[in-house]
Amino acid sequence: MKLLALETATEACSAALYLDGEISERYQLAPREHTALILPMVDGLLAEAGLPRSQLDAVAFGCGPGAFTGVRIATGVAQGIAFALELPVVPVSTLATLAQGAQREFGWRQVAAAIDARMGEVYWGSFTVDEAGVMQPDGEERVCPPGEVPLLHEHQWHGIGSGWQSYASELAQRQGVAMVDARGDYYPHALDVATLAVAALARGEGLPAEQALPRYLRDQVAQKPK
Amino acid sequence: MKLLALETATEACSAALYLDGEISERYQLAPREHTALILPMVDGLLAEAGLPRSQLDAVAFGCGPGAFTGVRIATGVAQGIAFALELPVVPVSTLATLAQGAQREFGWRQVAAAIDARMGEVYWGSFTVDEAGVMQPDGEERVCPPGEVPLLHEHQWHGIGSGWQSYASELAQRQGVAMVDARGDYYPHALDVATLAVAALARGEGLPAEQALPRYLRDQVAQKPK
Repeated sequence: MKLLALETATEACSAALYLDGEISERYQLAPREHTALILPMVDGLLAEAGLPRSQLDAVAFGCGPGAFTGVRIATGVAQGIAFALELPVVPVSTLATLAQGAQREFGWRQVAAAIDARMGEVYWGSFTVDEAGVMQPDGEERVCPPGEVPLLHEHQWHGIGSGWQSYASELAQRQGVAMVDARGDYYPHALDVATLAVAALARGEGLPAEQALPRYLRDQVAQKPK
Repeated sequence: MKLLALETATEACSAALYLDGEISERYQLAPREHTALILPMVDGLLAEAGLPRSQLDAVAFGCGPGAFTGVRIATGVAQGIAFALELPVVPVSTLATLAQGAQREFGWRQVAAAIDARMGEVYWGSFTVDEAGVMQPDGEERVCPPGEVPLLHEHQWHGIGSGWQSYASELAQRQGVAMVDARGDYYPHALDVATLAVAALARGEGLPAEQALPRYLRDQVAQKPK
C-alpha cells in the first residue's frame, strides 16, 4: 500500500507518504501559505522515496472540521490527484487526526479533541485507542459552545487541539474538573491522517474522487466569504 | 492541444474541454455545490470525448478574483490534476474570463468587467478584443469602491459581471453617463477560460502545478474564515 496524505485544515500544513508500513512526513506551521506549500511538500516526499506518482494506490486528506479555506485546499488537491490517477480517496476527520497525534506523540489513550470554531463554538469529538493503536470515535462529532460539549465519563482522558487553548476553563468547568491535561497548541499532522486512512481502507472505506467532500459540521452559509 | 479548464470563482460552476480547436462545456449555476459538481463535470466531458485523462496536455483554471472558497476549489483541483499528470497549468483571470464571455455571447469588443467583492467594493478590469478575438487587459486589475474605479475613455464599452448588478448607478455615475449597457447577471464560463488559456500557452505562459496560485487582489486576512 502506497498512500499519500494531505492535511491543511488548520494553521499547520503537512503531507505524508505511507509506503508499506513506513511513513515520512513534511510539516510546517504556516498560516495562509498552504496553497503554495502543499504540492512542493508532496513532490519532495515522492522524490525522496523515488516513487513515481503513478505508483500511488490511494490519497487521503484531512476533511475537517476546520478552517473552510484550508479544508478546501486539501479537498481540491486530493480530488485532483485521485481523479487524474484514478485512485480511491479517504477523507479523514481532523478531530480524529488530532486524537491520533495525541496518541502517537503523548501516548494518550482517551482524548477529547476540540478545535476553535470561532463564533463562540468548538468542533468537538472524543476518541479511544483500539488494540491496533488506532483512535476510534466515542460518538458523533459536533459543533457547539464549549459549555455544551458532551460529558466525558472516563477518568483518564486528555485534551488536544486549539479549542483547549481558546476555552480551557470553560471546557474544564463543563466536565466538572478544575483543570484538564491538554495541549492547545498541537495541530493535526498528515502522518496521522495516513495512519487513520490505512485503517479505513482496510475497512473498505475508500471513495471515488468526486465523492470525497469536506466535512463542515456547521452549515457553511453563515460564513461563506466573497 | 488538449486542455481542461475549470471555473468555480463565482456562483457558477463549469468545466470545459478544448480539443484541437473544439470546445465543449458543462455549466451550472449552483452556489455552494462546486466541490461536488466539478469532478463529475470533468469526468462527463472526458467520457463524452473518449479522451483518457492521461492524454491531456494542460490544465487551466479561473484563479480569481472572486469568492475565496470558490477560487480555492478550482485552484486545488487544477493543481492536483496537473501535479498527478505532470502538466503545465494556466491560471486565468476571472475578470478576463467574464470579458471573453461578453465578447463571445454579445459580440462586445470593449468591456468593463466588475465583480461584487462585498465590503462595498468591486473587483475591476477593462478589456479590449484583439484581432484574434481574444480579450486583452487595458490596465491592471484592482479592487476598490465603485466610485473609485478607473475612468474609461472609449465610447463603445459595455459592462459585465455581478458588480454591475450591485452597483449599476454608482459605476455609471463614476463614468459620467446616465446608464451603461451592462449584464450584471452573467457569470464566468470555463469555455472562456479555455480560450484565454490556449492563447496564454501559445505565449509560453504555462506554470508548474505548485506555482499555479489564486489571485485575490484583496489581502485575504480580513475575510479569512475559520
